[in-house]
Amino acid sequence: MVSIDLNCDLGESFGRYRLGEDAAMMTLISSANVACGFHAGDPDVMAETVDLAKQNGVALGAHPGYPDLQGFGRRDMALSGEEISNSILYQLGALSGFAQAAGIPLVHVKPHGALYNRAVRDPIAAEAIAQAVKRFDPALILVGLAGSALIAAGEAIGLATANEGFPDRAYLPDGNLMPRGQYGAVITDPDAVAANALKLAREGIAVAGERIAMDTLCLHGDNLRAVANARAVRTTLEEAGIVIKPLA
Amino acid sequence: MVSIDLNCDLGESFGRYRLGEDAAMMTLISSANVACGFHAGDPDVMAETVDLAKQNGVALGAHPGYPDLQGFGRRDMALSGEEISNSILYQLGALSGFAQAAGIPLVHVKPHGALYNRAVRDPIAAEAIAQAVKRFDPALILVGLAGSALIAAGEAIGLATANEGFPDRAYLPDGNLMPRGQYGAVITDPDAVAANALKLAREGIAVAGERIAMDTLCLHGDNLRAVANARAVRTTLEEAGIVIKPLA
Amino acid sequence: MVSIDLNCDLGESFGRYRLGEDAAMMTLISSANVACGFHAGDPDVMAETVDLAKQNGVALGAHPGYPDLQGFGRRDMALSGEEISNSILYQLGALSGFAQAAGIPLVHVKPHGALYNRAVRDPIAAEAIAQAVKRFDPALILVGLAGSALIAAGEAIGLATANEGFPDRAYLPDGNLMPRGQYGAVITDPDAVAANALKLAREGIAVAGERIAMDTLCLHGDNLRAVANARAVRTTLEEAGIVIKPLA
Amino acid sequence: MVSIDLNCDLGESFGRYRLGEDAAMMTLISSANVACGFHAGDPDVMAETVDLAKQNGVALGAHPGYPDLQGFGRRDMALSGEEISNSILYQLGALSGFAQAAGIPLVHVKPHGALYNRAVRDPIAAEAIAQAVKRFDPALILVGLAGSALIAAGEAIGLATANEGFPDRAYLPDGNLMPRGQYGAVITDPDAVAANALKLAREGIAVAGERIAMDTLCLHGDNLRAVANARAVRTTLEEAGIVIKPLA
Repeated sequence: MVSIDLNCDLGESFGRYRLGEDAAMMTLISSANVACGFHAGDPDVMAETVDLAKQNGVALGAHPGYPDLQGFGRRDMALSGEEISNSILYQLGALSGFAQAAGIPLVHVKPHGALYNRAVRDPIAAEAIAQAVKRFDPALILVGLAGSALIAAGEAIGLATANEGFPDRAYLPDGNLMPRGQYGAVITDPDAVAANALKLAREGIAVAGERIAMDTLCLHGDNLRAVANARAVRTTLEEAGIVIKPLA
Repeated sequence: MVSIDLNCDLGESFGRYRLGEDAAMMTLISSANVACGFHAGDPDVMAETVDLAKQNGVALGAHPGYPDLQGFGRRDMALSGEEISNSILYQLGALSGFAQAAGIPLVHVKPHGALYNRAVRDPIAAEAIAQAVKRFDPALILVGLAGSALIAAGEAIGLATANEGFPDRAYLPDGNLMPRGQYGAVITDPDAVAANALKLAREGIAVAGERIAMDTLCLHGDNLRAVANARAVRTTLEEAGIVIKPLA
Repeated sequence: MVSIDLNCDLGESFGRYRLGEDAAMMTLISSANVACGFHAGDPDVMAETVDLAKQNGVALGAHPGYPDLQGFGRRDMALSGEEISNSILYQLGALSGFAQAAGIPLVHVKPHGALYNRAVRDPIAAEAIAQAVKRFDPALILVGLAGSALIAAGEAIGLATANEGFPDRAYLPDGNLMPRGQYGAVITDPDAVAANALKLAREGIAVAGERIAMDTLCLHGDNLRAVANARAVRTTLEEAGIVIKPLA
Repeated sequence: MVSIDLNCDLGESFGRYRLGEDAAMMTLISSANVACGFHAGDPDVMAETVDLAKQNGVALGAHPGYPDLQGFGRRDMALSGEEISNSILYQLGALSGFAQAAGIPLVHVKPHGALYNRAVRDPIAAEAIAQAVKRFDPALILVGLAGSALIAAGEAIGLATANEGFPDRAYLPDGNLMPRGQYGAVITDPDAVAANALKLAREGIAVAGERIAMDTLCLHGDNLRAVANARAVRTTLEEAGIVIKPLA
């Protein structure tokens, strides 16, 4: 029996600013990556989002990013390895404050935006993130792009890791994501997204001739079309007999 | 045998800005209240300060404040009870990230600045703080001004509490601190500070005719004179046979 | 010939967070109060909003607030008079950077949220704001609640002032706004809002037996219903022969 | 008669955090580069620093940086050209608020830290800065590293520019600064700093065989040794008959 996790970045509102279809997405996913107040989220939003995850039985994960609210954590910042480690410890801790209050465990960690992208190739950033996760709680699962430096760094120090795929993104023959600027890089049609999800779940990707199985698929949740895509992905996977369940 | 705790607010540097004689103070106190990034402190400073506490065998506590770095948490802000609770959960969690990484426990919580002062009299703020502490970890000790609403709120929900006194501040006959603006409110001579510390440790204060014993004395650590004061207090207390030890 | 100004708070987006129907509102108003980066707005949003005002021939004003993005400037903060003055100078200057770049003048200043409310009654805040405006540019027009301490403070030092009214709010017999919590305080029906606007434009309000004429009416722009209200107000005023034009 | 400008980065305190020997440096320099609240400085510090410049007859300049207080603007951030332009307009405007209030003109602009370094080689950043300065006020003087892309970008659009040198830094034969990490890169002896200043003032540097004259020398002001260095530089230059005066 094949199973896979469906994850989504949530809790990205801030103060009066509302972002994301969190309530709808929580009914469609198995894991929530919750923003921790650096690139998005604030204490009130985090409390709300952790409660929402608890109510929906969705596994809780941290989604730490660069300290850049204006740039939504999408602009690279030249933090040193030590600065990255400490910013990860801070954000994991902050989210765990709400997890403890709600009585649910923190299950996984997935870096956000420019930090996620940097950790695909930069071994210093990748190791800084992995080490911080291990020091905080060695039982946490580290989520990263399938085949990335981040996954390698986690494995190297004995963390459980999860290879992530993107159903709404096209892949190059070498297993890398097609850069966003390129024609066809982003898939918008729900059926095509669902078909891609099914392919990723069944076959994984091939990187340097080696097959990498997918542990989790990322669903976007920041617009109504995204909710339709998520619904299509979930239905298609379930109809194909694939079980949706959190990482473990 | 009489014993008392000596505490100090530490880890209040930020980025390139250095503040406080943390290394010297750590050798003189039994409990450190560490800033959590809202009114002062940042992830790197917190990592450093938690390590310093560990090396010196000083009990670690959280020192959460209002989200106002420019005002150093000293300007009152009209946060609701729920906003206060969530900001406390966030900050407790953030500091616990470094405590977990260092392998030392979080022992106590003491609010900072304008939030501390508000919790002396405002029952909504006091209860919001106490509830957040309890939800995060019911074994934490809540530190507040002796006889304050904060102590009452902690006791009402079953938290361990610690009455705090200020050796470098004059007290009014009713047990309140003399307001800072008034002549004689702040004691600067090391001998006078030490004498006041001894009196507080031995006799406590009288509030509404009732004696309140002191559990912990606050030593300031933000200038070199403060270090001299702290040294005088510690020596005087020890020579009087009073044991300096953390809250428990 | 009767004339009146219609103003709206705009430019309150931040980074990826979008807020307000700015493009629609710009076609309906004569004056824009643009957020300056403290309670809302960022440099990119300000550039965009100033350009939008220029394209629509809308008079540009500054909308400075407390430095509290998370609270959207709606939580009171205990800033001193001097801190208020300096934060106003900073924000007026920041917006004037974009006005200079776009080649359009800054015409008026209207404080935001909790700062606006504080300046209704607190003479220290009112004078701090008025003095900062005068020091920055004595030709600027100071906008405040009709009959407020802010208007009095502006007049006392020789600034041009503008009394503001709220068509979507009910007024008490004494000329004060009915507090938001009370039943009927907020008017939602477009026709009722338009009727209130017409009454305010024609009759003003009576404070302590004295009639105060309205110089400007505030239209909200943060939802689609607000746009409908604004359209109803504009149409009703114009059909009644009242000319909509900026303050001068 | 040879003349040169002596500049210093000032106003880099923030809230309770004090940094820099501003009062001492103001008596030794001819131009002050004042932080604008992004990498350092706040409205109160800016008001104070502009007043100090006015009292000392020191020419006022803006010192805009990346929006990264924790990193003191020293960590590179992947802002686009448009984001850089807008952040410069914002900061120039903000400082001009205090200049207008004090009745003194803004004379020059010098980017800070990682933004300054990026503009040495990155033509997109260089042009974004130069264009923002020109749009804000085409009479402002743009200060950059002698021979940098920033100077070229300013000249290309008709701005007055000023080549800057660093008396406490060693130069490579090709006219570049020796990287900080290298042995001998930073000069600490006051006599050696003064001798370097004299050489830079008289001979400038040679870049690609071409001599570049220095318009301004940067003196650091963030420690007491720096003040001694500044004093030595000023005395040595004056004794050699070189007139210290602001850019014009």
